[in-house]
Amino acid sequence: MENELNDVARRYGIRFVGPNCLGIINTEISLNTTVMTIERQPGMLGFASQSGTYVTQSLPALRKRGVRFSKAISLGNEANINMVDAMEYLGEDEQTKAIILYIEGIRDGKRFVEVARKITPRKPIVAQYVGGSVSGARAGLSHTGAMAGPDFLYDGIFKQAGIIRVHSVEDLYMNGWALATQPPLKGNRVGIMTNSGGPSTTISYVCDSVGLHVPRFSDNLQKDIRKHIEPHASAANPVDLTFDVGIEKLAVTLPEIMMKSGEIDAMVLHGAMMTGYMREIYPHLKEMAGNISLEEFLKFSLPIVQEAFEMPRKYNMPYLISSLFDEEDCYTQGYMDHNFPVFRFPEKAALALGCLYRYKQIKERAPRKDALVPKINKAAEEIIRQALENKQAALDEYDAKQLLACYGVPVTKEALAANVQEALKAVRKIGYPVALKACSWKIMHKSGKGLIALNVENEIQLKKEFKNIQKNAGGKIPVLVQEMLKGSREFLAGMTRFAGFGPGVVFGLGGVFTEVFKDTTLRLAPVTDADTKEMFAEIRAAKLLDKYRGMPKVKLNRLSQIIQVLGNIALLHPEIAEIDLNPIIINGAEPVVADALIVLESKP
Amino acid sequence: MENELNDVARRYGIRFVGPNCLGIINTEISLNTTVMTIERQPGMLGFASQSGTYVTQSLPALRKRGVRFSKAISLGNEANINMVDAMEYLGEDEQTKAIILYIEGIRDGKRFVEVARKITPRKPIVAQYVGGSVSGARAGLSHTGAMAGPDFLYDGIFKQAGIIRVHSVEDLYMNGWALATQPPLKGNRVGIMTNSGGPSTTISYVCDSVGLHVPRFSDNLQKDIRKHIEPHASAANPVDLTFDVGIEKLAVTLPEIMMKSGEIDAMVLHGAMMTGYMREIYPHLKEMAGNISLEEFLKFSLPIVQEAFEMPRKYNMPYLISSLFDEEDCYTQGYMDHNFPVFRFPEKAALALGCLYRYKQIKERAPRKDALVPKINKAAEEIIRQALENKQAALDEYDAKQLLACYGVPVTKEALAANVQEALKAVRKIGYPVALKACSWKIMHKSGKGLIALNVENEIQLKKEFKNIQKNAGGKIPVLVQEMLKGSREFLAGMTRFAGFGPGVVFGLGGVFTEVFKDTTLRLAPVTDADTKEMFAEIRAAKLLDKYRGMPKVKLNRLSQIIQVLGNIALLHPEIAEIDLNPIIINGAEPVVADALIVLESKP
Repeated sequence: MENELNDVARRYGIRFVGPNCLGIINTEISLNTTVMTIERQPGMLGFASQSGTYVTQSLPALRKRGVRFSKAISLGNEANINMVDAMEYLGEDEQTKAIILYIEGIRDGKRFVEVARKITPRKPIVAQYVGGSVSGARAGLSHTGAMAGPDFLYDGIFKQAGIIRVHSVEDLYMNGWALATQPPLKGNRVGIMTNSGGPSTTISYVCDSVGLHVPRFSDNLQKDIRKHIEPHASAANPVDLTFDVGIEKLAVTLPEIMMKSGEIDAMVLHGAMMTGYMREIYPHLKEMAGNISLEEFLKFSLPIVQEAFEMPRKYNMPYLISSLFDEEDCYTQGYMDHNFPVFRFPEKAALALGCLYRYKQIKERAPRKDALVPKINKAAEEIIRQALENKQAALDEYDAKQLLACYGVPVTKEALAANVQEALKAVRKIGYPVALKACSWKIMHKSGKGLIALNVENEIQLKKEFKNIQKNAGGKIPVLVQEMLKGSREFLAGMTRFAGFGPGVVFGLGGVFTEVFKDTTLRLAPVTDADTKEMFAEIRAAKLLDKYRGMPKVKLNRLSQIIQVLGNIALLHPEIAEIDLNPIIINGAEPVVADALIVLESKP
Repeated sequence: MENELNDVARRYGIRFVGPNCLGIINTEISLNTTVMTIERQPGMLGFASQSGTYVTQSLPALRKRGVRFSKAISLGNEANINMVDAMEYLGEDEQTKAIILYIEGIRDGKRFVEVARKITPRKPIVAQYVGGSVSGARAGLSHTGAMAGPDFLYDGIFKQAGIIRVHSVEDLYMNGWALATQPPLKGNRVGIMTNSGGPSTTISYVCDSVGLHVPRFSDNLQKDIRKHIEPHASAANPVDLTFDVGIEKLAVTLPEIMMKSGEIDAMVLHGAMMTGYMREIYPHLKEMAGNISLEEFLKFSLPIVQEAFEMPRKYNMPYLISSLFDEEDCYTQGYMDHNFPVFRFPEKAALALGCLYRYKQIKERAPRKDALVPKINKAAEEIIRQALENKQAALDEYDAKQLLACYGVPVTKEALAANVQEALKAVRKIGYPVALKACSWKIMHKSGKGLIALNVENEIQLKKEFKNIQKNAGGKIPVLVQEMLKGSREFLAGMTRFAGFGPGVVFGLGGVFTEVFKDTTLRLAPVTDADTKEMFAEIRAAKLLDKYRGMPKVKLNRLSQIIQVLGNIALLHPEIAEIDLNPIIINGAEPVVADALIVLESKP
């Protein structure tokens, strides 16, 4: 029935959302096809969701948090309009200032990255992905029928596209809302203003943990601040009024002094409250006040300081509010009405600021250059053709490296030897010490089977090991004679194809630590210089690429080239299913591929 | 003034909280000295807080989330009653079923661990620590005057004491509330019941990520479930009713079938709602219903299914609620009234269940045995005495290893040589290859200065390198002749003293990766077998301790011994300030200390 529906739609040029969705919200034209109500005031947050719940059941919660959509789209089964279409639309929509995506699985991963990459330099995208675990994938499949992919694939494409990943729908809404409403962050210096020690300590701690800086204020600035606070209160930043209900000072005078100073790039304010607090003390004071009603009692509230909501916009920097009081408090409501995000716990405000900081870095990325995919190499083509003719499932190590070398990848000096004489001849060119390895496409994993001898240092050893290897391999198999590289830093690079996404290229820590740390990162092919630069910074072992413990800085342009070539080979040679280079040994400063596996497509 | 206050208190046997605090709450006797109101119904969550805000400003938010304290204590400056006293009291308090701690800095770390360790096998403790960053520490100091310590110190003592660490005050309250109200988790199998695909996929994903298991239900169980759901709905787990407002099925029938089955150990339910939903559709239906008021309209709500709140207790397993509707919905309120934690976003429910799972592991820890600290070793004492007499700031490597060997630590075979002849004599015992190292307490860091020669393989090399080292050292300095160990796995162990905590012992990945991964974990001395067992499991490189890539499993009892000895040495020899063993090379399966630094106290 879905196919039939699509046929009709195509015939008449109709685009549609769903089926199995809860409709759309478009506040620009007051359209809301969901079963719940929305605010009349239009918002600026665009949402594409693979869960209908998150554009319906969540509406009351969002209203109470001041979050308002520009457009929200429940995608359902994506028979016609899919996640990428929706994202593209939101990217072009002027009302939408930031985009959030709830994702259980993307069908067209390649286009997703292309489209997102065009949007993120000018409009932030935040995404949550929940398909990348066993039961998450099962639940998603039964829900929207979307095939999920591994978590590291989505992590990689989000980074490549400049999408900020979050891990809860609350963070999706709230961080999206902060990005949609606040001016861009221009630096990492945060001013914290509070009347309360706990939240200010916590906000400081979280700011530090996301790369933000809570600077100790200059003596001059502290002097200015001290004029307005009690002697025991702190002026250093965080500025803590301590127990003081002077809203004017807390929310206008002091924040303004801090923002004017030039010493901060963003503000977090905790503690602005009035009616929420009055409600709390009412039971205590009810009798004293002559048993008046709560409504009467609330009339004793001080007038709302409107300047609290108007002053911050003057300074054109992010201004985030933390409050333990919800929409029942007039300040929480006032800030929400004026499009300042109000976070219900202090940590969330600091984390959202971290998100704005991440977007600053994304905006500052160099403009994307198209990758230059070289022409196909005839010799490489021939290696693959012969292997397929032989009905090989993979190339042997020697051929794999020959193929890599065709595209300029530096590999170990090596030669194939059918017998000891040939091996000795090879050593004369390579020089001791050498490694000996049984070489056949049938032996994809050589270790632990007596098929490798390392650090062979002389003729006697060579003869012995050569025979051993052939004996263990059970026949007159060719033996690869290979230079032994020196270098204690080992990395890996690889290529795998993902349905709907095309070839993915990974880079990370290799050698003995590969499975211990699983420290890798991914990009879709083609991979650019800018991509590898970010990959180098992303791995946890990034320090190893730099000057480290007497070792020189790795030649990163050479390493970048290896990674980019893997993507290019994948694009040029569809017959190749998988590539695994591990280890890539850093020999001095120079990366050299010491082992390589190239697996061919079972049905070329 | 504080001292004076304390003197008076001591004289008359008075204990007091504060000063600079917001008082206490004791719901057992309806006592509340804070400025805000609390619920009449007593709770079961005990709280000790170094922020007054978190026992006052947060009270309305907690009430709306159904969280109720047994006792809550704002500690202020801790002039008399401190964090440890409060925790001990809550540990003994029968009304308190779980304890939460908000910490900016602990003064008596040693007692903190001792007391907490006695509590956690029978009562869970959850803690947030925010002092461990530059500006977090500064903010905390100005707030309560408490000295903070590094984050890894607190991380270590929390683990040692069986305290669950969280990173937001919301998680502190809500996970504490889940632990206080729910029966213990007996396994890791989670059943998920919902009417909504997004939340069920998300809950599944988060459960997977915290070590819980969302099993696919058996065919028999699925058959039972299918009798109650639409054909297109999923019975596999998560069980997803899809768009269906039948509360009876969602919140009674199906959860009961799942809990009865024996196939799960805990339930998460999302989607129970009624009046919250009615409020939302009221604007749509108002006219149709003859413009009745919201109050009139709400009367059309179906009667609340009381069984939803009563059934779950029968099955004695954790039952957590996720709802996008807050206390305005009758089901959210009903669950809260019946002491079921209601989480406002789905991820939070799954994360809280992860917390219950963590507590299961803590409860299952072997009962703590007291560590056996050996008697002081006379030879070790003599080494230190001589070094102090020489006014040394540290032991040289040879002496350091001699001292370690006195307590049974396996060290490299080595000898001190004043000249080449003595070196050659040493090699006759040790055997080539050897390492040569300049040996003086004045040279604490030898690398990069030409003071080390590795892999010295013969007499010619030895003579050359020996002279080089003495030349580079600028004098006739003794040279350490040391066996070269084979082994590609390198760890580290160390000891540092922390004010208020005593000696802390760290263990982790060593050698070249030390600064790259900073993969270490800490315990306070004395360290037990049980401690090291957990330390081995905690480091990210844990796999390296096991059989790995053809290498045998490390002899963990020997490694454990080394770590324990460091703690013992620290306790026996207060003259030692710091110990650093790096690398500890795994030679075959055997850990051997290849380099050691022992720093002495500047004022012994």
